[in-house]
Amino acid sequence: MSYKPFPELTKADESKVSELLSQWSLANGLVMYPPNFKTYSAAIAPTTLFPTPFPRSAFQNAVDVQQSFNELYTNLVANHKEWLIEVITQLSQHDVGFTGKLFEAYNKAVEESPNKELVQPLSLGVFRNDFMIDNQEASSTPGIKQIEFNTVSVSFGALSTKVGQLHNYLNKFGVYGKNYYSNDELPISTSIDELADSLAEADSHYKKQQSVDDSIILFIVQPNERNCFDQRHIEYSLINNHSIKSVRLTLEEIESQVEVRNSDQKLFIKATSEEVSVVYFRSGYGPSDYDLNPELTWNARVILEKSAAIKCPSLLTQLSGSKKIQQILTKKEIVKKILPSITEEDLSKLLSTFVAIYPLDDTEEGKLAKKLAFEHPERFVLKPQREGGGNNIYKANIPGFLKSIDEKEWDAYILMELINPPTHKNKLIRNDEIYNEDIVSELGIFGTILFDEQKGGIISNKNAGFLLRSKFSSSDEGGVAAGFGCVDNVYLY
Amino acid sequence: MSYKPFPELTKADESKVSELLSQWSLANGLVMYPPNFKTYSAAIAPTTLFPTPFPRSAFQNAVDVQQSFNELYTNLVANHKEWLIEVITQLSQHDVGFTGKLFEAYNKAVEESPNKELVQPLSLGVFRNDFMIDNQEASSTPGIKQIEFNTVSVSFGALSTKVGQLHNYLNKFGVYGKNYYSNDELPISTSIDELADSLAEADSHYKKQQSVDDSIILFIVQPNERNCFDQRHIEYSLINNHSIKSVRLTLEEIESQVEVRNSDQKLFIKATSEEVSVVYFRSGYGPSDYDLNPELTWNARVILEKSAAIKCPSLLTQLSGSKKIQQILTKKEIVKKILPSITEEDLSKLLSTFVAIYPLDDTEEGKLAKKLAFEHPERFVLKPQREGGGNNIYKANIPGFLKSIDEKEWDAYILMELINPPTHKNKLIRNDEIYNEDIVSELGIFGTILFDEQKGGIISNKNAGFLLRSKFSSSDEGGVAAGFGCVDNVYLY
Ligand SMILES: Nc1ncnc2c1ncn2[C@@H]1O[C@H](COP(=O)(O)OP(=O)(O)OP(=O)(O)O)[C@@H](O)[C@H]1O
Ligand SMILES: Nc1ncnc2c1ncn2[C@@H]1O[C@H](COP(=O)(O)OP(=O)(O)OP(=O)(O)O)[C@@H](O)[C@H]1O
Ligand SMILES: [Mg+2]
Ligand SMILES: [Mg+2]
Ligand SMILES: [Mg+2]
Ligand SMILES: [Mg+2]
Repeated sequence: MSYKPFPELTKADESKVSELLSQWSLANGLVMYPPNFKTYSAAIAPTTLFPTPFPRSAFQNAVDVQQSFNELYTNLVANHKEWLIEVITQLSQHDVGFTGKLFEAYNKAVEESPNKELVQPLSLGVFRNDFMIDNQEASSTPGIKQIEFNTVSVSFGALSTKVGQLHNYLNKFGVYGKNYYSNDELPISTSIDELADSLAEADSHYKKQQSVDDSIILFIVQPNERNCFDQRHIEYSLINNHSIKSVRLTLEEIESQVEVRNSDQKLFIKATSEEVSVVYFRSGYGPSDYDLNPELTWNARVILEKSAAIKCPSLLTQLSGSKKIQQILTKKEIVKKILPSITEEDLSKLLSTFVAIYPLDDTEEGKLAKKLAFEHPERFVLKPQREGGGNNIYKANIPGFLKSIDEKEWDAYILMELINPPTHKNKLIRNDEIYNEDIVSELGIFGTILFDEQKGGIISNKNAGFLLRSKFSSSDEGGVAAGFGCVDNVYLY
Repeated sequence: MSYKPFPELTKADESKVSELLSQWSLANGLVMYPPNFKTYSAAIAPTTLFPTPFPRSAFQNAVDVQQSFNELYTNLVANHKEWLIEVITQLSQHDVGFTGKLFEAYNKAVEESPNKELVQPLSLGVFRNDFMIDNQEASSTPGIKQIEFNTVSVSFGALSTKVGQLHNYLNKFGVYGKNYYSNDELPISTSIDELADSLAEADSHYKKQQSVDDSIILFIVQPNERNCFDQRHIEYSLINNHSIKSVRLTLEEIESQVEVRNSDQKLFIKATSEEVSVVYFRSGYGPSDYDLNPELTWNARVILEKSAAIKCPSLLTQLSGSKKIQQILTKKEIVKKILPSITEEDLSKLLSTFVAIYPLDDTEEGKLAKKLAFEHPERFVLKPQREGGGNNIYKANIPGFLKSIDEKEWDAYILMELINPPTHKNKLIRNDEIYNEDIVSELGIFGTILFDEQKGGIISNKNAGFLLRSKFSSSDEGGVAAGFGCVDNVYLY
């Protein structure tokens, strides 16, 4: 299959388009706070000028497997808890500082709960499954390969809707040429409303369960969040479409600002006595969210976990997103065990998205991996149990890095085959600069699932839009917030 | 009638609300460029924290008279052209530099047109009728009194919709207290879509008239417009709701960027050959729009006026918005002459919005006015033939000012009774500062009218939302763009 080239613009057109793009972004909330920001002023989010070609079949595959993946992770948490805990226990020994702390918070919450069981069985997953196209399968149609499965604080859902609207506006406005893309070629991610819908659905189940009429959703956020508009759009959708109010607190503020009722562990905002139905974490996914005040912030996690509010995600769900779990889940027999009723077709679709991921332990597989890491480091990326970008070790840096740490610690890492995505010469806009560079893109598929973490059982399992992020192909990492990449949209071909 | 007090907030609440307000504004395009801006970054528009109480009956009166006013001004232009031209001819002698130049451009366009008649009979008016509540009528319900009737470049229509949505969001979010205002008390101005609708309607008539399928709307804008988002939202509504594209050019760019076809005076964008159906002026209303390059910019007005595109507004319609005309139109017999079929009820509604406005000429009325200006200057404001704010002379400054100029020039001014609006202690937000001050408010009612300027006849005559602007009661002028005031919304009581 072939695709149209990027539209051609003269330098003069380019500066006009850059103005159109900037003003659309500022008028429609495709914005972020710049570093050292003032609350009253925002800047455009880095985006591409054009949508990036993406094979339609690969896109569709990624969409199609989402609900299986949602179920895979939540079944693991709900129906294979002992085994999950076993893996996490081991992992905690290697990664005491973070995985260990998350697990400790979980154990403490369970320990301190009546009958040693968390009072709220329901759990909400808002996930993002990240993929790249792998060019190596030159034979058939280009396939998607999973980068990682995110189970906590997945971001850019709202900006994905906005950038889709932006590219559609530019297309409709004739900036790319007269009807350069058809509507069908430029889908717009529905994430803003669908992410809000999932929170609203959890809220509604909470209301029924607790027989209450009024509740709010608590967003746990980072202090001075530059990407707060990505969260705010979800809040606006909640209030506009569902009349549900939200409150934002940092982990540090929890202890002083919330109140948990003794009798039933219900969570309230102290100042207003508003009852919290859902705690939605947009913070707490990495060590730096706890560094400033570890005691207060880790205690906040325990308070929230014990409470009757539905967590998005629960600590166990967050932990299920470890890179180590991702490695284990690449095995067919394990997937089958966790998804006993999956059809062969869905199973092979799901498995087809995996590249090889190796442990660095003393198993046969681990030994092979250790060899590969030193003999062919250029084929791999080494990942610790971390989220948020900037933690991976790439290619030639792997041997040196491994040698620099004790071999006993290698177990805390996974060795993942590198995916070789196609490059495209799109234009990236950051502030008033336009970069014309080779880029590579990462597709994220959002999924939401409301489930019973104690008895098992899925209440609702849905897709929730998508995200395309692009970065210079010369850079290894692709975080938009970290400043390496930008939000993009697919042009499906 | 009485109204609820403003909601009470603690200082801590206030800073939370200020953050909510800022982030909503930045996420939803209630923004402006700050001075010395970069294209990629915008700041919140100055707004009030709360909606300002406004008597419902007065609001309704202002809404009710709009279509009569639309018709009054366009009938004047279409059916009483000679008389209008007579007044403007006189005015031009006093105000050579601006009224004179506008009139000269009109004459030149007519002169250079085939058969000395402009080729496009249709004309679009996008008006804003500005009022204040007058407190002096202590007897009855507080009435609205007209400040001025704007016939060119009326602004803040889009931001009026946005600030209405902002206050509704804050209200729904419980910031003001639980259901502090009912929906019915907090109307949202429909200006964005209705202003766009009027441009789209003109475009559609142009298409029929010229038998073309494709046309665009040309926005004439100021270079480096800080308030461009107020215009952009209308452009987005045009493209989203009507699939009509718009192009923005400054007056200076016209000569080099457009092309007029000799045969039928059709207007095209040179680079793209796009046909222009409507020229919408958001610039050209004041001398400073022409100062930088008078030859090029005045010539641009002539080029556009002669063209087959529908002007919004035509030069005559713009000129009909002179303060002098406003003064003349306060006379009942004149209004009746221009609106022969107006009902007594509508007529008295319309007349009830006028305060006394005097000429400063040699008529009996003018002589009285000259006396009043020196004996009771504190009751008056002196206005030149200008738009855009910052030109008026208030109260005690009037005698000194009049003495400083030749008495022959006084004719170029009108002397208007001051309206005494009620004050309210609302909170104004500018950047990160909150001012808790006495404010006064000015209500603008938008109206749109498509009419035949040559044969008379109205094609469509509509209301198009409203605007409330508030300013410190201590400041005489109230321009938001000029930095004195802010956009507000009514709380109807
Ligand atoms: N197997 C791979 N092949 C090619 N590139 C990869 C691979 N794994 C990761 N990357 C690149 O490194 C980036 C970061 O990796 P990953 O997403 O696993 O880390 P993370 O710390 O969980 O980041 P985040 O949660 O912020 O997305 C990816 O976005 C991708 O650009
Ligand atoms: N009769 C009046 N009584 C009280 N205040 C007045 C009166 N006339 C004008 N003002 C105040 O002065 C401001 C400017 O007056 P006006 O709108 O007539 O001038 P302008 O130059 O046409 O301004 P713009 O077109 O920018 O609104 C008004 O917004 C109002 O605040
Ligand atoms: Mg990632
Ligand atoms: Mg991740
Ligand atoms: Mg005015
Ligand atoms: Mg005016």
